[in-house]
Amino acid sequence: MFICYKNLQRKGDEMRIPNHIGIIPDGNRRWSVDNGLSKDKGYDFGLDPGLSLYKLCKDLGVKEITYYGFTTDNTKRPPLQREAFVKACVDAVKLLSTQDADLLVVGNSDSPMFPKELLPFTTRKSVPKGSIKINFLVNYGWEWDLGNINSLKGEKNTSIYGGLNSSGVSRIDLVIRWGGRRRLSGFLPVQTVYSDFYIIDDYWPDFKEEHFYEALNWYDKQDITLGG
Amino acid sequence: MFICYKNLQRKGDEMRIPNHIGIIPDGNRRWSVDNGLSKDKGYDFGLDPGLSLYKLCKDLGVKEITYYGFTTDNTKRPPLQREAFVKACVDAVKLLSTQDADLLVVGNSDSPMFPKELLPFTTRKSVPKGSIKINFLVNYGWEWDLGNINSLKGEKNTSIYGGLNSSGVSRIDLVIRWGGRRRLSGFLPVQTVYSDFYIIDDYWPDFKEEHFYEALNWYDKQDITLGG
Repeated sequence: MFICYKNLQRKGDEMRIPNHIGIIPDGNRRWSVDNGLSKDKGYDFGLDPGLSLYKLCKDLGVKEITYYGFTTDNTKRPPLQREAFVKACVDAVKLLSTQDADLLVVGNSDSPMFPKELLPFTTRKSVPKGSIKINFLVNYGWEWDLGNINSLKGEKNTSIYGGLNSSGVSRIDLVIRWGGRRRLSGFLPVQTVYSDFYIIDDYWPDFKEEHFYEALNWYDKQDITLGG
Repeated sequence: MFICYKNLQRKGDEMRIPNHIGIIPDGNRRWSVDNGLSKDKGYDFGLDPGLSLYKLCKDLGVKEITYYGFTTDNTKRPPLQREAFVKACVDAVKLLSTQDADLLVVGNSDSPMFPKELLPFTTRKSVPKGSIKINFLVNYGWEWDLGNINSLKGEKNTSIYGGLNSSGVSRIDLVIRWGGRRRLSGFLPVQTVYSDFYIIDDYWPDFKEEHFYEALNWYDKQDITLGG
């Protein structure tokens, strides 16, 4: 397709396109401050980038995307910021729910920090075409995620994946993080054990298509061994 | 101390020195090929770097180092390579055991792939001075590591750390990986949830002190939030 020929170093059908991309959309607060706004204002500016990224992934044949919304760690921030990122996540999920995608919200929904409007999305919503899976982490915590592995005790032929609270999210091939930090910050520790990490220094609200192509061109050159 | 003033951008006592550094000493096989040797030959050249790194860490007041020796995934490689990296790990542990350090070998010791010579090191050996902890992963697998979390079921006030098979290894502040790859390859998924990652493009046998200082100078500039 045209978009491939133009921006990717090899034709789309010759490139190794990751099946599953994890997105850490960091830097919203630093972006706000740089733009003379209070820290809570940046989250809204992350909505359009999220939708653009979905469209790029879908066009390229990526099978699954996981967005890092907010975490149980994040909820300890000042209330004004917390309300702003919760609202941005609710709006993002609603926006994505209008697209052609099978959508799942993953997080601790037993907690009062989980927005009730998103409860209907905690089981995957499949749509007729359903050409791509989207997972959106909301009030996610790595300890919460690993906290039920014990339920598998005694069962045979079960993997650790099956015991995760995030078991609806598959292994991630490529993690792209905006905002320059080189860390996972608790993002899906099991699904990322073999992931390749690509860091974009720009903040998430400054998302550009070029960031995405840069990450894919880099990923195409990696030797993927899954630990072997 | 002199080594600080010379190589670090700020004085050692003003810098944020990581308490715990994880070392992924990758690139031994690529180094071998680049140097006209067969792939199995590179591992031996990783012994001196490991000892040099220990000395640098000890001088700077790092409290704990974890070396990624070999994994259950790695044991699927050709026998000649496997024998070579197992031998190099045995030699490295023996070498480190002569130093002033509390040493622990962590890995699946029930498997025939675990070298019997290292069984005595699977409980931590404390020495009188014991100014630094060293952990060395041998026949380690992330699935093996997480496989016993279930044993905590029903116990109160226990964290996930306590249920790990690697529970003797604490949270890691900084992971330094040699050999250019930007991934964890199954390295301690729980202890690395908040770690900062620094990548050195040179292969591990080409270790230089400057790599280490470069990583520490970078780490000193990071904003550490532990997910908050």
